[in-house]
Amino acid sequence: MTDAPKQFEELLRRLGEISDLEKATGLLAWDEETKMPPLGAGPRAEQRATLAGLAHELETAPALGELLEELRGFEAEHEPDSFEASIVRVARRDYEKAVRIPSSLRAEMTRNGSRGYRAWLEARREKNFAILLPYLERGLELTRQYVDCYAPEGDPYDVLLDEYEPGMRTAEVEAVFDRLKAELIPMIASVSEPVDDSCLHGRFPAEAQRAFALAVLERWGMDEESWRLDDTIHPFAQSIAPVDIRLTTNFHEDSLHGILSCMHEFGHGLYERQVDPAYSRTPLARGVSSGFHEAQSRMWENHVARLRHFYPQLRAALPSQFSDVPLDTFHRALNRVAPTMRRVDSDEVTYCLHIILRFELERDMLAGAVELTDLPEAFEAKMGEYLGLQPADVVEGVLQDVHWSDPSFGYFPTYALGNVISVQLWERAIADLGDLDEQFERGEFAPLREWLGEHVHRWGRALEPQELLERVTGSRLDPEPYLAYLRDKLGQSYAGARG
Amino acid sequence: MTDAPKQFEELLRRLGEISDLEKATGLLAWDEETKMPPLGAGPRAEQRATLAGLAHELETAPALGELLEELRGFEAEHEPDSFEASIVRVARRDYEKAVRIPSSLRAEMTRNGSRGYRAWLEARREKNFAILLPYLERGLELTRQYVDCYAPEGDPYDVLLDEYEPGMRTAEVEAVFDRLKAELIPMIASVSEPVDDSCLHGRFPAEAQRAFALAVLERWGMDEESWRLDDTIHPFAQSIAPVDIRLTTNFHEDSLHGILSCMHEFGHGLYERQVDPAYSRTPLARGVSSGFHEAQSRMWENHVARLRHFYPQLRAALPSQFSDVPLDTFHRALNRVAPTMRRVDSDEVTYCLHIILRFELERDMLAGAVELTDLPEAFEAKMGEYLGLQPADVVEGVLQDVHWSDPSFGYFPTYALGNVISVQLWERAIADLGDLDEQFERGEFAPLREWLGEHVHRWGRALEPQELLERVTGSRLDPEPYLAYLRDKLGQSYAGARG
Repeated sequence: MTDAPKQFEELLRRLGEISDLEKATGLLAWDEETKMPPLGAGPRAEQRATLAGLAHELETAPALGELLEELRGFEAEHEPDSFEASIVRVARRDYEKAVRIPSSLRAEMTRNGSRGYRAWLEARREKNFAILLPYLERGLELTRQYVDCYAPEGDPYDVLLDEYEPGMRTAEVEAVFDRLKAELIPMIASVSEPVDDSCLHGRFPAEAQRAFALAVLERWGMDEESWRLDDTIHPFAQSIAPVDIRLTTNFHEDSLHGILSCMHEFGHGLYERQVDPAYSRTPLARGVSSGFHEAQSRMWENHVARLRHFYPQLRAALPSQFSDVPLDTFHRALNRVAPTMRRVDSDEVTYCLHIILRFELERDMLAGAVELTDLPEAFEAKMGEYLGLQPADVVEGVLQDVHWSDPSFGYFPTYALGNVISVQLWERAIADLGDLDEQFERGEFAPLREWLGEHVHRWGRALEPQELLERVTGSRLDPEPYLAYLRDKLGQSYAGARG
Repeated sequence: MTDAPKQFEELLRRLGEISDLEKATGLLAWDEETKMPPLGAGPRAEQRATLAGLAHELETAPALGELLEELRGFEAEHEPDSFEASIVRVARRDYEKAVRIPSSLRAEMTRNGSRGYRAWLEARREKNFAILLPYLERGLELTRQYVDCYAPEGDPYDVLLDEYEPGMRTAEVEAVFDRLKAELIPMIASVSEPVDDSCLHGRFPAEAQRAFALAVLERWGMDEESWRLDDTIHPFAQSIAPVDIRLTTNFHEDSLHGILSCMHEFGHGLYERQVDPAYSRTPLARGVSSGFHEAQSRMWENHVARLRHFYPQLRAALPSQFSDVPLDTFHRALNRVAPTMRRVDSDEVTYCLHIILRFELERDMLAGAVELTDLPEAFEAKMGEYLGLQPADVVEGVLQDVHWSDPSFGYFPTYALGNVISVQLWERAIADLGDLDEQFERGEFAPLREWLGEHVHRWGRALEPQELLERVTGSRLDPEPYLAYLRDKLGQSYAGARG
């Protein structure tokens, strides 16, 4: 970079400032959910709004647009996947998107979103969808205005999807989801009697869970030099810097979900941790899409954690619960398939149906094909049709997730894309690395971790999601490996019960 | 404020943004010293530099200067100590100071300070002053550039002092310090045999210390709605908002210093907590000076904590240590006077000499009267002269405090000013409230807390420090009450030993 033009240095300086503001905002958010005393909430909202506003000013500065124009020649002189060309290309994409949205619209969306969040909490307390309704109506209106800013020629939902899954088209998602639905609904119906998972119910002291989870994560590659684990209400992972990764979880003493959520969040954290260090303080220094991010967390939660290798340690950590439980019983329980009312509690097979019904309803809302007043019934109808379940009330139904309080349409589908991508990546990893289960039994996690770093993580946002997937697996988004994996898993898991 | 001009509304909006950035920077700092994984240090320095730079841009925006000019008439229409006039006056003072410092210099000072802090930690680990030296050299260079920005006519050190103690002159401090030195050196020399404090040595489990400290602070007025207590290396207090107060401490298992430091930091926290809520998100919403801040922490640490009232609870918390120790023995030990190597461990009598030697060295460094390479020896020489002590190594000597890693010259003297002010305030409080010791025995801390809120804290920065002191005590800075208090204390404490 010694012969880089002055403009490129200036671009990096500006991008560094934007990144620093985003990371500082990230710390405000992390702290709010993990450490902040409750009364801090009011001032914190002001602090976050101020930093977001300043970041938006920097992101849309005309001088930034001019720099990016001046650097077109410089970009063309470099290989498309080089640091230099990728920075300019991705920064331009971000800039061109950011300038389309007036500050006033963005501020109004933020304001309505934070009011909507409070309304959602109250609507849940009162079990009354009508409390959320006006904010959802206004949110939908603002979402349509947002879409109009891009004047899309194709499906308006494409605009929303692009925010989370750059370059992905609604039609592609729909095709994948239709294929999943066609297979998953009968697959679930075939599970007449779920396996016994009573061994997963009991009293699990939070401190024992934490110690066990940390021991597992350390074996996987977490270290105290650049990671932390803290308590929160709704688990998440946050990168304050590629060398400062914060995982959060919530240990409930009546279940092991907190441990599984640590493993899930580890996948997110590892992605951010293994981005090429040269990308630090640039827009390349994060995961390429929500779907790819979720693929990482799903891989560690489902493919790595649901194997058998850690059971001896778990048994040692919680002897009174597990000393009499054979490995096979535990393993079958951990991989149990049974429709659940809550998306976040659901197993690998039913999970995608929770997502598909939300995706379909988002598209209907955007198209005006469903009246918002009818949304609770529409939600319940699909729960019945896809999962055979009847929500007891709106809290189990349409108010289940926080997402529509905002309403961040376009996000939900990426959860299912993550599942699909995770199996595509997993199969390639096995093809390259051999029997991972055996390696894990020996405590060897570095091969998988390094494989992910080399093939996926280091790229950050330098490649587009589908381009990255194709480079790694030779294929674009493809639901077949995921379906084959589920069929196989369902067969294995139920072999004992059936036999 | 309904008839306030548009310009005043706009001023508040701008000051709110500046305040939000400062508070966000405060959180970055708090996190760095309490939670951040070590590798996060590099990116954190960049993040802090960026936020400081952006804050400086807002603080020096020409539009802010124009607003402040336009508001001169509005200011004159209001009483000088009203919200409106105080805001405009203090904001203008801050603006006029800020515009003198180029953003690049401020950013460089922040960056060097953050790196210097890491170097200081390493220098202490390695017992090697040379590791800190380049950062101190650079810091001194930057400090001189900073002073030059103000083109001071008098003592250049005035510029540095003004940052922490607005309106205070170096010559005034020197006069007070010379008076203290003249009394304290012989006073200490008269203590031929320190009282027995062996009851303060032992094994004190950190968790028992924490529980006890929290119980005391809760009696004093800390609550979980708006306060936290965390571990750190070098204790401090930070206000993320007036309703979000963070105390930090360091419990060593071989002493009770961590408990005393909690009590000290509580005083700082309470000051920020009790500023008039109407001042939130304005430059009035913090303590008026470092000296006044230190007066609060010293009052709770020395005047409140070193009384007898909490001994029954301490005995219950650490029974194996204290069950056989009579209250008088404990009380005399806690108030022991004996020169100590570490400033932060020192008693009330010797404390000021630790400060005075640092103040003198800072002035020498600024004037070029001491070579930085000779600083370790110069430090040791003064330790010998003032306290009769010989540091075993640089960790006990020149590397003892974090302050010169930054290097925040001008800060040290305010510790001693705090001691002086704390006795001035304490005497007035007793005159107004009667026998506080008796109230404390009954668990009544609200009268003192509320008295401080009413007379000192609520004013924030609306009054100048000396003006505030004069309103409360009827006198400006005066070392005599402090000296009288020490003479009295030394007499009492040693009465038993002498008798």
